[in-house]
This record gives sequence, structure tokens and C-alpha cells, in this order.
Amino acid sequence: MMNKTLVGLVGVTAFAALILAGGKTPAPPEPSLAPAPEPLAVEAASSDEPVVPVEVSAEARLREKALAAGLSSLPSTLIEPRDNAITPDKIELGRMLFFDPRLSASGVISCNTCHNVGTGGDDNLPTSIGHGWQTGPRNSPTVFNAGLNIAQFWDGRAEDLKAQAKGPIQAGVEMANTPMQAVATVKSMPEYVERFTQVFPEEQDPVNFDTIAKAIEAFEATLVTPNAPFDRFLAGEDAALDETQQAGLELFIGRGCTACHSGPNIGGRSYFPFGLINRPNAEVLPPEDKGRFEVTHNPADEYVFRVAPLRNVALTAPYFHSGRVWDLKEAVQVMGHAQLGLALSDEEAGKIVSFLESLTGEMPSIAYPELPAETAATPRPTL
Amino acid sequence: MMNKTLVGLVGVTAFAALILAGGKTPAPPEPSLAPAPEPLAVEAASSDEPVVPVEVSAEARLREKALAAGLSSLPSTLIEPRDNAITPDKIELGRMLFFDPRLSASGVISCNTCHNVGTGGDDNLPTSIGHGWQTGPRNSPTVFNAGLNIAQFWDGRAEDLKAQAKGPIQAGVEMANTPMQAVATVKSMPEYVERFTQVFPEEQDPVNFDTIAKAIEAFEATLVTPNAPFDRFLAGEDAALDETQQAGLELFIGRGCTACHSGPNIGGRSYFPFGLINRPNAEVLPPEDKGRFEVTHNPADEYVFRVAPLRNVALTAPYFHSGRVWDLKEAVQVMGHAQLGLALSDEEAGKIVSFLESLTGEMPSIAYPELPAETAATPRPTL
Repeated sequence: MMNKTLVGLVGVTAFAALILAGGKTPAPPEPSLAPAPEPLAVEAASSDEPVVPVEVSAEARLREKALAAGLSSLPSTLIEPRDNAITPDKIELGRMLFFDPRLSASGVISCNTCHNVGTGGDDNLPTSIGHGWQTGPRNSPTVFNAGLNIAQFWDGRAEDLKAQAKGPIQAGVEMANTPMQAVATVKSMPEYVERFTQVFPEEQDPVNFDTIAKAIEAFEATLVTPNAPFDRFLAGEDAALDETQQAGLELFIGRGCTACHSGPNIGGRSYFPFGLINRPNAEVLPPEDKGRFEVTHNPADEYVFRVAPLRNVALTAPYFHSGRVWDLKEAVQVMGHAQLGLALSDEEAGKIVSFLESLTGEMPSIAYPELPAETAATPRPTL
Repeated sequence: MMNKTLVGLVGVTAFAALILAGGKTPAPPEPSLAPAPEPLAVEAASSDEPVVPVEVSAEARLREKALAAGLSSLPSTLIEPRDNAITPDKIELGRMLFFDPRLSASGVISCNTCHNVGTGGDDNLPTSIGHGWQTGPRNSPTVFNAGLNIAQFWDGRAEDLKAQAKGPIQAGVEMANTPMQAVATVKSMPEYVERFTQVFPEEQDPVNFDTIAKAIEAFEATLVTPNAPFDRFLAGEDAALDETQQAGLELFIGRGCTACHSGPNIGGRSYFPFGLINRPNAEVLPPEDKGRFEVTHNPADEYVFRVAPLRNVALTAPYFHSGRVWDLKEAVQVMGHAQLGLALSDEEAGKIVSFLESLTGEMPSIAYPELPAETAATPRPTL
């Protein structure tokens, strides 16, 4: 950890100079127990106590800067969806459906196939493999913390996770099913019918495509990854980020990344053109995929995408909607050039990557569900 | 429950007559707490006590008959493999590998894809879908209790589960990988290397294709499904099987099914020709798949297959190596005709199905593993 310095221009300037010089990063010191965070000077100033000079650590200043730039911590438990009250039974039912491959026409593909909760909530492929081994058009986004995003899919075409859940079940290149057959499949298994009846008592016909989607959304609401090193740093644990990660965070703020990547999901809250300053090459930004334009048909939305949320980004290579960049440092450099007009050096991009690695949180414990057995009424798989 | 009867030919004959007549089955009574099992007459006779007539229930007699026919209970914890000492760390590592799709060339298919622990340990397809959406030649057998089988695969070509595990990873129609690339994939992730080093301290180069297979076998050793109603019945809980199931068990023994389907896995211990008495039709027994002959090249092994283990059979439709029969009652009738030369009535087959449903055990709790992230050294998926 950087030693605490007295508040003053000398300390701050020295820190900034270290960052901007891009000099050799000192080796991170041994981890130590974080001291209790010092009260900030601003806090002292706003109280009734007389203003006295207080020691403020470089970490405390960086924390303040990060919060001022709009970065924030993850909720530690559940991301409450709209219009879908969460109950333990609904979560449990959603967990079953999330892992049930029989929601696909083939009986082979489940939500977890492309949003694998064991590998960062995605499938680590450029674009997903679906029904008939077809490849989808865009990279599978992580399901973790997805409820924090402004809308779902790279182009925001689903307003929330319950709307999103209906997409892949029906997409010909994904699960290739129909709502009617998905409902018939679920209805064919008495244990599912019983659970839906219990979870959705207000529904006359509890198993329907909406309730399937709502149950899945309820499970996904629990897929939160709290206590990342960055969250612990924000909470006052100075030692949670090492010196390189702190330098990376400083750059992430200073270079302007936080203009888009902010909020609890470090992104996911707004839309921006990919290639705001410089257009990426055609592999990274294939000309045929016009992004949000395909939803709004507004020419201003050509090549506009939802800002990628960066939580757990170190687990979710390859990157971008096209999934063509495997290396996170390269992805950072592509973004610097395309969105900010910056040529980030290898060293700068490396520090930012170190910071991004601090966004990997604690994965929730997920029990693999025991699914009901098919019956004679269950539609047979179609390959 | 059938009322207890005094030991004697009258009771036994009446019971047999009920079964053989194929008359209408009385509705099963309400479940009740099972009384403690009565001591059997044979036990009394073998002690030093003077022989006195004792009450023996129909259930106790049936239990005795089942044990005499070679049916037995499942071990309740772990099926110890040969040459592979089981440790908690090895089980944990195996669980990770079992669920890791990156053992396949595509990065999409894991062991769990075809041996889905949520759906009875198989994939509920006639034959599995693998790399490039190819269909495999035979129905995927359940992974549950598989360590009890004499050998692995329908033709017994792998002597145990560690040998079996190597098959699908390399099969072109399944995971389509090579041992070298699977090892390179695992080695590219430091967390895996650390775990292998810890689990296999005797190995100079701990990550290799053998240790990968051994770890998977260790996890699979835990995939046991104890306490099925049938096991509880064998353990003395009369009420664990209802009257129809008891009648089914009586038929299962009396008609000769136990000649092959015995032992703790109710099968899986021997090889027999499919079509011992009558050859099934070409859809059920496709002429081009000569079974164990393809392993031994012994003409006596044409159309010979490992006897299917029947634990959890109600969860693993469709049936047979060809996976062409979806209905368990139909499967029972096919077997009666093909193997025993019997035309089982719908009612008889229905009772046997009721008994087979009592072989569904308690599924183990399995936590979905958190898998290590790929690195720059991880081989890229090949689609």
C-alpha cells in the first residue's frame, strides 16, 4: 500500500505524476490488514467541529474520486426486478427452469448453456452455439448482475430479464422452441404444475410463457457477485486493491472510462456508439450489425450498443458484441482508441486490466436442481 | 398394504393366484407407518430357540424372495473405484471437470451435457447430440450408480469409469477433443494446476489425461441414489411399496427378470444377447450395431449388450441402446418378449412399471462448481 500522506498538493501531485509518467510500477508490497479508513477532510469540514488538518491516505482520496466518478458497490443480496415479487419458491422454480434443457426444442440447450454460471455467467465463445450447431450473431452477455442493466441484450431490445428470457427460448439459432411447446413441456410434468400453482396463486392458468419468464427472472435476481476487491476497497479496506490496481483505477477515472462505465455494474446503464471517436476494424465492428438501430430504426442509433457492464469482466472473454477480442488488455486498448481517441500504452492498459480484475466478485452458491421426469405427454425433442 | 397372513400355503397360494390371475388391482390403501419387520420363520429356525409358529407378513416373505433372487440395496454413500483412492479434494476437482465444457473442443459440451445430473444422469434423447450437432450411435447411459456396473458403455468396452471418462472427451461425435488439447486446456489455468498438484502429489507432472479421468471417476463415485422406496422396503419398511408395486416386484421375480436384473444396481453386472428368445424389430435393435461383438470380435457376442441397470429407470427414457422406446411399459413388454419369450399383458407390465418406479432413489446434492477463468494460454474453442 502507498503510505498515508498529509493532505496536500505535494502528495496528490506526486501520485498523479507517478501515474502519468507511466514509469515502472513498484512491486506491490505484501498484503497487510487494512487500517480503519481515515475520516475525510470534507467530512470534518461539514461537521460542527472546528476544521483541523487530518491525515488522509492516498487510498481514501482515490476512493472519494471513484465515488465522485459514479462508481459504486454492488448490492450484496438480490437485484429486485420490476413487477415481479421475489419469493424463495419462485427463485427455486426459476433455478429449475434455468437449468432445464427441455425448454429447448432439442432438449439439449438450457439457459445455462450460454449463460454458464460456472464460467462467469457466459459461454466463453465469440458468439454462442445453438440449435443445430448454428452460431448466434452476438457474444453472450453475462447473466451475473444483469438485473442492474438499463435493459437486456447488446441492443437493449428487452426491457428487463423477464422479457429477455423469452428471447433465446424462441430464437431459431438458440433454443429454437415455441412458447406453446415450452409451456406444453412444463405442463406435462406434474411437479412443475404444482410448483407454478404454488408460486403464482393469482394466475388462473399458472403455467404460461409469462410465468416461466418471471420465474427465471426471479432466479437471475439472485445472481449477484458481491464483495469484489473493488467493493471492499470502496468500503474502506485500503489493502483490497494493490498499488497497480489503484493506479489502474486512477487511470480508469482519469482517462474518462467512467464517463460510460459507472454505477454498480460499472456500465450497463446507457447506450453509446461503438466507435465514438475512431471506428474499430470490421472484425471487431462488423458493418452488417448496426446494433440498436435494428431496434429503433433511428439513424442516430447505428452501431450504438449498450455500454458493457464490467463486473467480472476478467472471466468473460472474448469481448465486445462481436466476441472477436480474447485479450482483455487488447480490449482496453481498442476501447481507448475507439471511444476516447487515446493510444493507451501497454503499461497503462495493463494497469487498467489489473483494476478490472478487481471487479471479480464472489460467485453465488448454486445447487444443481433435481428436475422432474418427463411423462408420456412431454413433447419429444426435435433435432 | 396386504394384511399379514400366517405362514402357510393358503396365504402364499392366494397371493400368487392374485398375481397370476391378472385381476383388477385393489386401490392402494392410505400410507401408514411401517410396523417393525416380523422376524422370519427361517431366522427362528436357525436359532437355538424351539421352533414355534410365528406370524410372517406377506411383505416379509416378498422381501425374502427378492433377496433370494439377488436383488439388493444400494450403498448409501460412495462406490469405491479400483486403483483410485478417493479424497474430498479429488471429488471436488472431479466435480469441476465433470461440469467443465472446456474439456470439449468446442467449449460447449461437458460430461454433464449427456449425463445430466438434473435429469436422471442422462440426456433424455434417443442418442446424444455432440460436436457439430452430430448424433451418437447409442443412448447415453445414466451416470448414477454407474460404478456398480461390471464395465462401462453398452458394450462394456471400458473396464471402469476412469477408462470410460476418456472416451467421450475424444469421440469425434461427442466432445471431439484430443488428450493433448484437454491437458493443455487444464494446464492453462493455474487454479487447476494447483488443485491437481494437491490431489495427485505422487505425480511428477500432475495434470495428465489419466489424472483428469481419475478425478472425474472420483466425483462419479459420489453419484449414488440411495433410499429408493425399494431399498426402504428391503430394509424392512413394509409400506415403502404399495400393493401394486409389491405385485410388480412379485412378477419381476416370478417372470424371470431377476435372472439378469439383480444386484444392487438391478442389472449392469453381466452381458446377454438382446433378443435371447425373440429378436426385437430393427428399430429397437438396428442390425448394424452388433454390440459387444465390436469389442471382442467373437461371433457369440453379436447383439450382446451389458444388461441395463434399472436404478432410476423411470427417469431415463427413452430406453435401450437404440433409445427408440419412450414408454417404460412398452420397454418392459419388449424385454418380456425378446428375452423371456413372454407376452406380458398391459396389466402385468403396468405392475412391473410400478415396481420399477420404486427404484428411483434420492439424488445427491450437487453444487454447481465455480470454474477457473481461461488464460491467454487456453486453447481457443474449435467449432
